[in-house]
Amino acid sequence: MENRHQVVILGGGFGGLTAARALRREPVDVTLIDRRNFHLFQPLLYQVATGSLSPGNISAPLREILKRQKNARVLLGEAAGVDVAGRRVLLKDGEVTYDTLIVATGARHSYFGHDDWGTFAPGLKTIEDATFMRRRIFLAFEAAERETDPAKERAWLTFAIVGAGPTGVELAGALSEIAHDTLKHDFRRIKPSEARILLIEAAERVLPSYAPDLSASAARALKRLDVNVLTRTMVTCVREDSITVQAHEGTKVIPTRTVLWAAGVRASSLGKALADATGCEIDRSGRLILEPDLTLKGHPEILVIGDLGNFSHQSGRPLPGVAQVAIQQGRYAASTVRARLQGRSRPSFPAFQYHDRGNMATIGRAAAVVELPWLRFSGLIAWLAWLFVHLLNIVAFQNRMLVLIQWAWSYFTFNRSARLITGDNPFPLDL
Amino acid sequence: MENRHQVVILGGGFGGLTAARALRREPVDVTLIDRRNFHLFQPLLYQVATGSLSPGNISAPLREILKRQKNARVLLGEAAGVDVAGRRVLLKDGEVTYDTLIVATGARHSYFGHDDWGTFAPGLKTIEDATFMRRRIFLAFEAAERETDPAKERAWLTFAIVGAGPTGVELAGALSEIAHDTLKHDFRRIKPSEARILLIEAAERVLPSYAPDLSASAARALKRLDVNVLTRTMVTCVREDSITVQAHEGTKVIPTRTVLWAAGVRASSLGKALADATGCEIDRSGRLILEPDLTLKGHPEILVIGDLGNFSHQSGRPLPGVAQVAIQQGRYAASTVRARLQGRSRPSFPAFQYHDRGNMATIGRAAAVVELPWLRFSGLIAWLAWLFVHLLNIVAFQNRMLVLIQWAWSYFTFNRSARLITGDNPFPLDL
Repeated sequence: MENRHQVVILGGGFGGLTAARALRREPVDVTLIDRRNFHLFQPLLYQVATGSLSPGNISAPLREILKRQKNARVLLGEAAGVDVAGRRVLLKDGEVTYDTLIVATGARHSYFGHDDWGTFAPGLKTIEDATFMRRRIFLAFEAAERETDPAKERAWLTFAIVGAGPTGVELAGALSEIAHDTLKHDFRRIKPSEARILLIEAAERVLPSYAPDLSASAARALKRLDVNVLTRTMVTCVREDSITVQAHEGTKVIPTRTVLWAAGVRASSLGKALADATGCEIDRSGRLILEPDLTLKGHPEILVIGDLGNFSHQSGRPLPGVAQVAIQQGRYAASTVRARLQGRSRPSFPAFQYHDRGNMATIGRAAAVVELPWLRFSGLIAWLAWLFVHLLNIVAFQNRMLVLIQWAWSYFTFNRSARLITGDNPFPLDL
Repeated sequence: MENRHQVVILGGGFGGLTAARALRREPVDVTLIDRRNFHLFQPLLYQVATGSLSPGNISAPLREILKRQKNARVLLGEAAGVDVAGRRVLLKDGEVTYDTLIVATGARHSYFGHDDWGTFAPGLKTIEDATFMRRRIFLAFEAAERETDPAKERAWLTFAIVGAGPTGVELAGALSEIAHDTLKHDFRRIKPSEARILLIEAAERVLPSYAPDLSASAARALKRLDVNVLTRTMVTCVREDSITVQAHEGTKVIPTRTVLWAAGVRASSLGKALADATGCEIDRSGRLILEPDLTLKGHPEILVIGDLGNFSHQSGRPLPGVAQVAIQQGRYAASTVRARLQGRSRPSFPAFQYHDRGNMATIGRAAAVVELPWLRFSGLIAWLAWLFVHLLNIVAFQNRMLVLIQWAWSYFTFNRSARLITGDNPFPLDL
């Protein structure tokens, strides 16, 4: 067995999992290493954070996915570093040797150097992030109901979302529905619909990576949902009870107890470790600068895929941090392994080429924007397309059914049954 | 509004919630206070702990349940004590006055004075308990796969369940299915089916509160599931890597990394506080000794329902800590309030009378025992009855559907898709 080519994949997200499955018929041994025992369908994580879905609905155990793939094994472990010369991955408690290493450890949210903001402004990358964000959102309404000081009540009912990319827009839309519909009859003192939802974006428009007309239609949809969009606005300070923003008109301190972070991401720390070990460069988001074939310079045996890599050979700009890129790169990485086993090597097989199949973001009930290579549209049809594509891409069939039922249910009843406030010690309410 | 009779209910479990709903047509103001924002269907908590269901599937937001009940309000809060003379509930951050107080704060698991065992032997009363237990169970298999020392691997694959009441039996059955079916093809090195599952019980038979023939058929079913039942066996020590048991044959130290606690419970600390405040007695499990009408001696305005109370007037023994008792007592408490508002008081209305509608426990796939007042049976029919009764009693209709689908799915595929290992910092694997 040890004579076979050893492929080690770090990370069981979209990229790593795709690479592992694409190697199922190859004469190699695949070791997939992840800190978590499940694959997470991140595009729906905001629905866990806003009480629509349960964590289990958007997760699938990695072992379950790969149980029938005889050449693959799963290892629960965390890579602490890579011994490039010895071709060994150093785990926190052990090591694994490789012939080919595929690194797909992704990114975490980042506070642009203000790590202290993290305490007050939870981000959204893991299941724990999502249940913590959910806790913060629903506790805020509870705290407002208990509050007697009107100014403090106002601060509890003010929600500031930082970053108006797809995640920020989705969170804002969901929060609006929570305030206006889900919690409509739930409280006796406060009116949840009086909640103020701010969506703060440094660029000049929401969904800045989309076409301007889609940004405009997203902005209109957000306005209908009573979301207060602040563009060209920078966040300069986040505290327990306020957020400070700076715009053309000047600086403003907004009292709020709930700041949700949907702004920057930073590549996982393994990027820096690999850069140090290989001499490869990283960009300012911590991503590794990749060769045209996704390898690290001077290390054809190391491929980097997904959010950890900066691949700029196609358009001069790095590819976006979306599932599609990771999936296509995962397939490419597997085909590289296959080609090499057959004795082919670059340039006899082509460089990686990203085929943008389109992007979509949902804003709320029956509102979404879709950007395809040949077509752009928004509204109900876009929303249905969004639902369909997301449902179809959830990994486990069982989860597809569960998500569908819960969506249908929520649509008709406006309920969000998974709005549990969990985590030990919910008191005092001021977190 | 303040002129209306104020009913304050502490605890939104089966008892408290039943009382609140039973008061919906009365001219009273109901305040339901709970530390959590959801009602938990505790009988299925073990299915969360064993990866079959997600927390959201067995929870329903209290505000959602009571949103249409105009005379009820929900307060997220934790009672620190009661000012009996002033008729005030003292919260950790505030106070609420009452005319009638219904106390339904239930019980926690207890380690018979060995609170240090709690670190190594998680119990099962809250959602957090369940996800922690789930983490422990599935991490144990992961750790075994990583272990190179055969003795240590054996300890990781040894599961000791303390207490063979319904919860212990259900956990043992589920663990057996996990080891033999769910994880069958998941690992490459270990054989999960070699896991050793011990069910430890101090009494002379499993399900000691059931009829002896049902205990015997449960014991046979457990044997078929490869569960090692140790009756007349006391636990004398629990450590990180072993459990010490004492039986007629002597004392034995069993190396294990996973001890699950399904033995004793202890009434919530509010029991002690109320005993101190009213001079009422508590039993050695911390339960308040109740009057025949569920009130505390000398305090007709305070009713205690569910696991917090010791009601022995019917059979001389305290009623069991099951949902049925709490529900019937909740209804009785509401009827007491109603009767008093109509000017009636004891003895013009009867003492509380428990009607035992039967008990059931499931052991595993197609195996359960049912004990009705006029009939006892076990096996497939009992299992179907168990499924039916539990499905029917889940509070939210949506959850009923979600649970049904997941059960059907698990039944045919042997999969447990909610087997996520969550919680921060999963490493090092030795917890």
